[in-house]
Amino acid sequence: MTIERIEPGARLSEAVAYGNLVFLAGHVAEDTSAGMYEQAADCLRQIDAHLAAAGSDKSKLLTIQIWITDMALFPELNRAWDEWVDKANLPARATVESRLANPGWLVEIAGVAAR
Amino acid sequence: MTIERIEPGARLSEAVAYGNLVFLAGHVAEDTSAGMYEQAADCLRQIDAHLAAAGSDKSKLLTIQIWITDMALFPELNRAWDEWVDKANLPARATVESRLANPGWLVEIAGVAAR
Amino acid sequence: MTIERIEPGARLSEAVAYGNLVFLAGHVAEDTSAGMYEQAADCLRQIDAHLAAAGSDKSKLLTIQIWITDMALFPELNRAWDEWVDKANLPARATVESRLANPGWLVEIAGVAAR
Repeated sequence: MTIERIEPGARLSEAVAYGNLVFLAGHVAEDTSAGMYEQAADCLRQIDAHLAAAGSDKSKLLTIQIWITDMALFPELNRAWDEWVDKANLPARATVESRLANPGWLVEIAGVAAR
Repeated sequence: MTIERIEPGARLSEAVAYGNLVFLAGHVAEDTSAGMYEQAADCLRQIDAHLAAAGSDKSKLLTIQIWITDMALFPELNRAWDEWVDKANLPARATVESRLANPGWLVEIAGVAAR
Repeated sequence: MTIERIEPGARLSEAVAYGNLVFLAGHVAEDTSAGMYEQAADCLRQIDAHLAAAGSDKSKLLTIQIWITDMALFPELNRAWDEWVDKANLPARATVESRLANPGWLVEIAGVAAR
């Protein structure tokens, strides 16, 4: 089976599709001055685009991993999540606190989808 | 192939099965006053139940991700793990330290199994 | 389908192959006195060996998860990564900060490959 690499950059691909599975890189916001809600919504918009490029969409998400830099912002993360996620097709999910590579990033989101 | 969602809640499913793979959400203890050993054992019992609901069991675990809030509790985590894991069928595993969403949680466990 | 477990130890397997997928455990350096660059390069060498044992190689990596203990060392991690990774076949990747089980470890690397 062919491995399809979506938006390969200098160091990683934004998504990698293999057979019926799509592996999403850790997605981060473009605007590091934005708050948690805006950053999370931006990550999820980027994930929509990369899932589409791989022939998938959020209704086919299998599992999501979320890292946030401050658990005090968990409600704001969930506000963006709840507006975005397909409630008829909820993925498995884990959310933990970690510092991220850019001090302006408040959230990073990776996952695996079917296609 | 159908995506089967096990115990979907308001925000995530406890497990998602797709083809021969089962993706487990981050599992956490029900009793946030319990110690590490008890919390880890509770997570693993819940994982048993969700694997069973997906037609799998711990002998088919492929990989496990564990987050604990304090590496000083790593031996207590491993005590619960060693009592539970199928030693003839050891999964890949990674354990790191992260704060979790509820300050009473000491451990969160996710993973992927075959079925 | 058979589940193939690579180098099972007391508690986990270094890699687990199932069908066309290979799940890598969290890899850590053997020399805990080494710096980030050397530790990361050691992890990646071990990953080469475990991928080979599973009938895969780094050109087939689908996704990589990296935990480092200090984001100040991110450039040194990336130096080892950039020298090692197959730039024609870049996996998805996420890198976050977490404390690790041994205080001497600076980096831990897990992932999933095709084979």
